[in-house]
Amino acid sequence: MIKVGIIGASGYTGGELLRFLKNHPEIDIVAATSRQFKGESIHKVHPHLRDFEMKFEDIKPDEIDADLVFTATPHGASMKIVPELVKNGMKVIDLSGDYRFDNIGTYEKWYGYKHSHPLNAVYGLPEINRELIKDADLVANPGCYPTGAILACLPIVSENIVDTIVIDSKSGVSGAGVKPSESSHYPNCSDSISPYAVTTHRHGPEIMEKLSKFGSARVSFTPHLVPVIRGIMTTVHSFITEDVSPEYVRELYSEFYAEEPFVRVLDQGEVPRLSSVRGSNFCHIGCFDIDDNGRLVVASSIDNLVKGASGQAVHNMNLMFGFKETESIDMVGLHP
Amino acid sequence: MIKVGIIGASGYTGGELLRFLKNHPEIDIVAATSRQFKGESIHKVHPHLRDFEMKFEDIKPDEIDADLVFTATPHGASMKIVPELVKNGMKVIDLSGDYRFDNIGTYEKWYGYKHSHPLNAVYGLPEINRELIKDADLVANPGCYPTGAILACLPIVSENIVDTIVIDSKSGVSGAGVKPSESSHYPNCSDSISPYAVTTHRHGPEIMEKLSKFGSARVSFTPHLVPVIRGIMTTVHSFITEDVSPEYVRELYSEFYAEEPFVRVLDQGEVPRLSSVRGSNFCHIGCFDIDDNGRLVVASSIDNLVKGASGQAVHNMNLMFGFKETESIDMVGLHP
Amino acid sequence: MIKVGIIGASGYTGGELLRFLKNHPEIDIVAATSRQFKGESIHKVHPHLRDFEMKFEDIKPDEIDADLVFTATPHGASMKIVPELVKNGMKVIDLSGDYRFDNIGTYEKWYGYKHSHPLNAVYGLPEINRELIKDADLVANPGCYPTGAILACLPIVSENIVDTIVIDSKSGVSGAGVKPSESSHYPNCSDSISPYAVTTHRHGPEIMEKLSKFGSARVSFTPHLVPVIRGIMTTVHSFITEDVSPEYVRELYSEFYAEEPFVRVLDQGEVPRLSSVRGSNFCHIGCFDIDDNGRLVVASSIDNLVKGASGQAVHNMNLMFGFKETESIDMVGLHP
Amino acid sequence: MIKVGIIGASGYTGGELLRFLKNHPEIDIVAATSRQFKGESIHKVHPHLRDFEMKFEDIKPDEIDADLVFTATPHGASMKIVPELVKNGMKVIDLSGDYRFDNIGTYEKWYGYKHSHPLNAVYGLPEINRELIKDADLVANPGCYPTGAILACLPIVSENIVDTIVIDSKSGVSGAGVKPSESSHYPNCSDSISPYAVTTHRHGPEIMEKLSKFGSARVSFTPHLVPVIRGIMTTVHSFITEDVSPEYVRELYSEFYAEEPFVRVLDQGEVPRLSSVRGSNFCHIGCFDIDDNGRLVVASSIDNLVKGASGQAVHNMNLMFGFKETESIDMVGLHP
Repeated sequence: MIKVGIIGASGYTGGELLRFLKNHPEIDIVAATSRQFKGESIHKVHPHLRDFEMKFEDIKPDEIDADLVFTATPHGASMKIVPELVKNGMKVIDLSGDYRFDNIGTYEKWYGYKHSHPLNAVYGLPEINRELIKDADLVANPGCYPTGAILACLPIVSENIVDTIVIDSKSGVSGAGVKPSESSHYPNCSDSISPYAVTTHRHGPEIMEKLSKFGSARVSFTPHLVPVIRGIMTTVHSFITEDVSPEYVRELYSEFYAEEPFVRVLDQGEVPRLSSVRGSNFCHIGCFDIDDNGRLVVASSIDNLVKGASGQAVHNMNLMFGFKETESIDMVGLHP
Repeated sequence: MIKVGIIGASGYTGGELLRFLKNHPEIDIVAATSRQFKGESIHKVHPHLRDFEMKFEDIKPDEIDADLVFTATPHGASMKIVPELVKNGMKVIDLSGDYRFDNIGTYEKWYGYKHSHPLNAVYGLPEINRELIKDADLVANPGCYPTGAILACLPIVSENIVDTIVIDSKSGVSGAGVKPSESSHYPNCSDSISPYAVTTHRHGPEIMEKLSKFGSARVSFTPHLVPVIRGIMTTVHSFITEDVSPEYVRELYSEFYAEEPFVRVLDQGEVPRLSSVRGSNFCHIGCFDIDDNGRLVVASSIDNLVKGASGQAVHNMNLMFGFKETESIDMVGLHP
Repeated sequence: MIKVGIIGASGYTGGELLRFLKNHPEIDIVAATSRQFKGESIHKVHPHLRDFEMKFEDIKPDEIDADLVFTATPHGASMKIVPELVKNGMKVIDLSGDYRFDNIGTYEKWYGYKHSHPLNAVYGLPEINRELIKDADLVANPGCYPTGAILACLPIVSENIVDTIVIDSKSGVSGAGVKPSESSHYPNCSDSISPYAVTTHRHGPEIMEKLSKFGSARVSFTPHLVPVIRGIMTTVHSFITEDVSPEYVRELYSEFYAEEPFVRVLDQGEVPRLSSVRGSNFCHIGCFDIDDNGRLVVASSIDNLVKGASGQAVHNMNLMFGFKETESIDMVGLHP
Repeated sequence: MIKVGIIGASGYTGGELLRFLKNHPEIDIVAATSRQFKGESIHKVHPHLRDFEMKFEDIKPDEIDADLVFTATPHGASMKIVPELVKNGMKVIDLSGDYRFDNIGTYEKWYGYKHSHPLNAVYGLPEINRELIKDADLVANPGCYPTGAILACLPIVSENIVDTIVIDSKSGVSGAGVKPSESSHYPNCSDSISPYAVTTHRHGPEIMEKLSKFGSARVSFTPHLVPVIRGIMTTVHSFITEDVSPEYVRELYSEFYAEEPFVRVLDQGEVPRLSSVRGSNFCHIGCFDIDDNGRLVVASSIDNLVKGASGQAVHNMNLMFGFKETESIDMVGLHP
């Protein structure tokens, strides 16, 4: 039984952490912080999460006494909190972008400000860093787009059978967070689609840095906002450099992810869909078709709030503390 | 450990049964039947339900050897199957309308054909029939609209403080089942709303028969189709016959459902929403406002496929076999 | 050719006014004001409205020189602008709630503040006030819910064949305006439904005041937010006091609205749907079913931004200036 | 005044033709055929299209007496009807795929059957074939995906500044037609996204054949189904072969389409969105961003049923008969 705190528990990722941790047999939630909702019941903010006796607290990081802290805080805010938590002997899983980059210069270029507290962190994608995560004190939980994109690209990049990769991603609106904005305003985004940050999204360099460790393909990324609550569909268009067949590629992925508890490689004839993973920590990968131009298409689907955020964070926690790896995050998707 | 069969496992309610039963520690699924998908993997039909070793089978009712059978079959089909299962010593939970009515004449009038195999069944709404369900051999699982409507009306009907009740319900499209039709065709039903079966829906007499055992209010019912996948919002407009306050009514509901594991009475200032119960077996009830005409408004939200169908069926199973009442159906809603 | 100004042109109703007026052969738009977007092109705010040469201006009401001004300003703001416009000899169509009530006390009770500039205005529902509108200097454009509700109730109230009316309305999210909020945040309102302002919505007393001139039925009103961009479905449940048939009621409506250019009474077997009137100035009315409790159900559908706001405003303008009544607002709905 | 017939008027494209032609001052609709709905009122099928006196007829092609016939018939059916119409001296605009290909072998390969009645037809994309269309007797109306894709690619292909093009398209569900199917079933496709026909969609070779006349870039195409009623967002990822800037590319497009009545090149900072063109015949093109890999992103939005089908067909009619080019199809989009 470990003590767990959640800093920034009133957002969507905070709500998802509470959903997964509620019945986790090995943990005890000792704090859920929110400045804005201090003193409020959890269900006033998360209407589905009733029966919590605890309320939101507004406590300082140095007042938290826990074995593990999830920092579900905005970019730029985490770097001001995490170092103290680590110094005080707590393990930390940070859900912001602050500790995801190995190259601090890349971070500063794309996030637009100085990184005040660089620390060594393990990039928390279990499929590539499982062993490192087990021993980490600080895990940087991956971005939502990078999770879906890296998992869809990893086998072909590692195998070096493609050179050029175009990642066309489509995200649900919850990816923009709990705060209302013009782009999340229902009449604006429902029954519509738009590309955004077409060549400038921060998750692009994150994807590139991580994939560059496995191969040399050049990678381009463009996200879209689609009228969906949860989920990211990542369509990877890549150009093959060797004469491989769809069957070969499917088999490559199947073997690559054979032991992974949360990745499923689809059969021929199946396509990934968001509903298959809605609310779940699974990533589905499929298609593997190749056209006459030598373009290979691989598509993956995840729930951006789960495998793309809080579910993966709990997965990391399970690894860090030696719990059953799938504990409390093994529910299947909600289809329909 | 009991043996469980599901007849008609390829529809949405079949999929939900499989979702809940997958990890139930006390049961072993011995058969999931589908004539159409005989021999297919489960995930070919239910793309979120992977890792099942079993396949759909097309077996006859008399070939099933189980302790309990769920019949997720259409109205009119169940009555041809259930009697033999019961005769062969199996317990049955029927999800169709065939055994819901005490008055066989009402059934025949509204369903439009003769009931060929009348049997005694317990109406499987645990909130009114918990003890009877525990001893039942045949449970008639309630309709989706009736579940939300009866729970929203029961306290005021039982207390006899209203005379006239208008139930205006709004259902998600999954309520129409897995089979495509004009009314479920996305371009027709998205971004739109329509009333349907305005005074003639079969769930109307089901609601009336059940409520009539608790009080004498006259009850009217009209359903609407709304662009939502799952969920039923039931708005109950009733006219009070005694001078009661909103606080009194809220307290009445709170006490009435105090011990119920799946009903939550909302605080003042909260409203029921479908997302609060999406994918879950909970029913949220709130509002309790009264206007100058003495009209009291109570609203309830459920997931039509869970509390309105398969979740409630598993709840009934847990009661019938003495399992922990909330086993495998205690997940919270998926908000957002 | 008349000169027309729009005060508050950057909201949804402002955008719709521009859409309808763009090609109106009798008018010249001389000003479209917006404090926030002063100097911006129209299409920066209304991305569908390109090819306008004019830009948003931030001009004072007393600087406007027009024959007619639409005030698409918030409640409370209109009353500070309209009197000066009227004094300066301009005709005004006000889209706020400020001049809708005959009883100023009702206004002040429900809007929560003093009315600083009471003026005589004609309630701009052409179906009841056509002749008065033609001669009016100030028209108070009706609320969106009242438009759909009054049209659905008027024949039975006028005929005095019902006593108790429950109006259960369902509105699309654009009704809440252009400004993002928690309730219009896509992840919160998509795939969900909620009642709101259950017995306290300001449109309730507006409906009651207008209907009370035609009959004595007691009227109750509850609105819901549904995941739809545009449209209001109004379901009217009323209790008949005379032994009338559905056919009689349908005929009553057909005759009542026989000459109306924008009201269509549906045939038996048809139901109103939002898509039938999407983007159009039409109101469809149908159902007319009666149940065993003597409850009559009538449902109407409108587009809240058109017949419920700007289309009706242009209709009023056409009447006030003797233009062809349907000019520039006679497009049909956008189904699918 | 010309006489116009519509063969296959009960589908979505038939409904849109009726919507546009209803008020067209130069035409008289003499027939709207439907085998299934013979004798029915138009509004029984198209609930928004009321006040038509004509009814659906089931007449043979050789019984039609018209100056122009729109064949809104399925692939494979048009080729059996069109030749006779042409022989009888009527002009024809065919909305199927039957006459779109110059290379009959390509057609037969991708559509899977012999073409029984090859005829010379003009490909009806006014932006490339305006003058030919004016003189054509048979116009093959372009596919929906090809319309959005060709318009987004044409300037860079013609200018030969890119070599490799990946077209990632996202279509609303109305593109699949009026007939319900599993993929258009609301619970399956709402709140989800899926790629489909990943490298095998028939519109791929149509795009390639048409673009190949303007340049030599190799072109790949993948479509997706998104939860939207109408609209296609086409994201074109291309790799530049010359050192051009975003400003250069935007200017290239602006000049290319300067005289086009239905194409709008967006300003910097704007992105195409489906709502901007919903219900309209416009195509919006924007983005023009270039990343460090030399990947250029251009995106276009159209309404698949209008610019992607019936609006474009009416545009072609206006050209063929010398009417005002934008007559009856110049309405703007319906945002929100």
